[in-house]
Amino acid sequence: VANSPICIGLIGCGTVGRGVVKLLHEMRDAYTQRLGAPIEIVKVLVRDPAANRDVPLDRSRFTSNPDELFNDERISIIVEVAGGVDRIGDHVRRALESGRHVVTANKSLLAKHGVELFSLARRKGVCIAFEASCGGGIPILAALKFGLNANRIQSVYGILNGTCNFILTEMTETDALYEDALADAQAAGFAEADPTLDVSGADAAQKLAIIASLAFGVSVTDKDVTHEGIDGLDSDDVYYGAELGYVMKLLAIGEKHAGGLVLRVAPCFVYADEALAQVRGSFNALSVFGHAVGHTMFYGHGAGQMPTASSVVSDILNVAGGWYPQAFERMRIWPDQHQPTALIGPEGVRTRYYLRLEALDEPGVMGRIAGALGAAGISLASILQTESPEGEAGEHVPVVITTHHATEKAMASAVKALAKLDSVAAEPVCIRILDLPEG
Amino acid sequence: VANSPICIGLIGCGTVGRGVVKLLHEMRDAYTQRLGAPIEIVKVLVRDPAANRDVPLDRSRFTSNPDELFNDERISIIVEVAGGVDRIGDHVRRALESGRHVVTANKSLLAKHGVELFSLARRKGVCIAFEASCGGGIPILAALKFGLNANRIQSVYGILNGTCNFILTEMTETDALYEDALADAQAAGFAEADPTLDVSGADAAQKLAIIASLAFGVSVTDKDVTHEGIDGLDSDDVYYGAELGYVMKLLAIGEKHAGGLVLRVAPCFVYADEALAQVRGSFNALSVFGHAVGHTMFYGHGAGQMPTASSVVSDILNVAGGWYPQAFERMRIWPDQHQPTALIGPEGVRTRYYLRLEALDEPGVMGRIAGALGAAGISLASILQTESPEGEAGEHVPVVITTHHATEKAMASAVKALAKLDSVAAEPVCIRILDLPEG
Repeated sequence: VANSPICIGLIGCGTVGRGVVKLLHEMRDAYTQRLGAPIEIVKVLVRDPAANRDVPLDRSRFTSNPDELFNDERISIIVEVAGGVDRIGDHVRRALESGRHVVTANKSLLAKHGVELFSLARRKGVCIAFEASCGGGIPILAALKFGLNANRIQSVYGILNGTCNFILTEMTETDALYEDALADAQAAGFAEADPTLDVSGADAAQKLAIIASLAFGVSVTDKDVTHEGIDGLDSDDVYYGAELGYVMKLLAIGEKHAGGLVLRVAPCFVYADEALAQVRGSFNALSVFGHAVGHTMFYGHGAGQMPTASSVVSDILNVAGGWYPQAFERMRIWPDQHQPTALIGPEGVRTRYYLRLEALDEPGVMGRIAGALGAAGISLASILQTESPEGEAGEHVPVVITTHHATEKAMASAVKALAKLDSVAAEPVCIRILDLPEG
Repeated sequence: VANSPICIGLIGCGTVGRGVVKLLHEMRDAYTQRLGAPIEIVKVLVRDPAANRDVPLDRSRFTSNPDELFNDERISIIVEVAGGVDRIGDHVRRALESGRHVVTANKSLLAKHGVELFSLARRKGVCIAFEASCGGGIPILAALKFGLNANRIQSVYGILNGTCNFILTEMTETDALYEDALADAQAAGFAEADPTLDVSGADAAQKLAIIASLAFGVSVTDKDVTHEGIDGLDSDDVYYGAELGYVMKLLAIGEKHAGGLVLRVAPCFVYADEALAQVRGSFNALSVFGHAVGHTMFYGHGAGQMPTASSVVSDILNVAGGWYPQAFERMRIWPDQHQPTALIGPEGVRTRYYLRLEALDEPGVMGRIAGALGAAGISLASILQTESPEGEAGEHVPVVITTHHATEKAMASAVKALAKLDSVAAEPVCIRILDLPEG
């Protein structure tokens, strides 16, 4: 058990980095037992080595000079938990170039430059481990690469952003307005001061690009994922959806269709009794449908210091244990080994829709609405029209409609026609209703 | 890509075996691509080689002679999907002795003889892969071994038997009697003609023994797991529990306490809004609480031909790909490398309880019940007493009580005292209420 230590260089010592240092420290004996050798952090690259970080690591190991890290011959694994694409991307390249394995939590970097980096690692005979880049502490990528690899994956549906799920859960359970739920998320530490990356769906799109490349065996980047966020959502729609038995979720969707792959992030209604609908607060989950295994779901904390550190350290153990580098070398399942794939935009996909219109409460209006939908080839599944608050005719009242399956293209033309009706005020709200596959 | 084939010997060709043959056949090109070499089933050991199995495999490969399988020098991996402990255990030993890796779905064998078999594999320089032994298609074991391995696992709670969960879901959602729900499960193919192994909790206990050994790093067998089943359950209790906001589940529980490990399978009430409570029908799930990752849950089909074949074939790919044997050799996380552990019986564990008594509807009875509980040091959390159907005094009426935390020992003595009261008819029903950890 007294083998020589496995030496690690750490890039970044922010929230996640401190979690990694803490975990390696407190679990040192257990990890040494599991690996047969201790793990030692010998260098930490940070902007300000003198800052007080309150970690159990001697200050002499901190440096702001990349050369000190990269020239340390003891280091065999470089762990990148700094985030960022340009400067940090160069550090990751240098780590690989110098023959070090890389463990990274950097979803932006991998979603944009994954293929190049994996290919570089392969040329240098080293590996990249990246469990923490998607789904925080949930071992989603391990499941896709090593647990479900006998399957042809047909679709994935993920709740991959805890900030958005926290906000949507608040809106659903307390009828909160979007702005108030966002403020609560910020107060609870689940949302940044500038929440754009999260609430726009861009963060989930990056994670979906990584997940899709493993699930479907294709080469894609975050540019291949269309995304809408939750920032434009009206709490009325969350409420009316709930009345109809649906829960609003920001879903990262990957679906194999005959014409190609659909990759998108969008707010969707799902049936309240679906497993994904039960994922509350800041929790994340990924549902995977495989042709043999059917429906599987992986659930847990998608962010946070210790859940993310859990995945980073798990990667460190697996790389240090030697089996992950072997899997990287032997199994042809990695992003650089995949081909580009045909992508189809959402306009060709058939789905059901939720529509909310503000319509004049006057005779004949329902006929005109149904007519506009019918002209686009869309048939109605249900209509919910409440009486106008004052009970007077001639007021605008909300009309909530669910449709049968229609293409997004047909729906767009129907929405355009509806918006032009004199009896319909403003642009109708249109949200897809996702029927998850049987499985 | 045209490397020489990886040759497999299959033991058993029942439901799961046929699923394995089917999957290897239909996915042949994809697997060859992923591995760099094709997988070939060269021999199948069965009782009756002449039987018509409707599988895409030449009948000449079937044999009832073990020597034909074991003497075939091409075979490097033996896949055991026959089930059974004695005869099949000897086949598995012979496979390992002869230097073949083993892939097995055999939970009974591993729960009873795991340590011996893993140790034999290690001496022979081969490995055992066993994902399909627990949780069917859900990659639970991969998650514990390679995804959550940075954690000190504190507890696991599993719905590990689809038959029981199907029956309990029916009882919960349709108020069905146990007998009727069992008949439905049998009609739907989710329960055997003799359902004892499932409904007694013995099947879940075997799976828990395997899961606990990996989760807690201890050496245990199914004899270390106490188990109760669902066969004695009264649908009245499912109904009253639901009234109180609970869902009845048969849970496989592994908890680390100060004095040792608790390992048990028992029907429990869980809060209706817990993720585990939402696991319906024949689905399985395992909740794992790790000290760093918090709560994670893994969900999917716990049985069935193709979900189980999915895990078996995944194991085949991982063994054939060379990384799993390396992980088996290098990581010290396997059942034969663990030490026995202190086990504590349920009598010392504090939990909340649901109690149902049939009590005489007469003055003073509630006082006597509360007195008996108080004498055992147990305090009441809630009481539900409905009026007697005829509204007459002197009849027996159900009284449903929930308690605050108490030890099982205290509760046993209170139940004894309650049963002796003249005003209480028959033995009170007592079911633990499980407060899952925060996580």
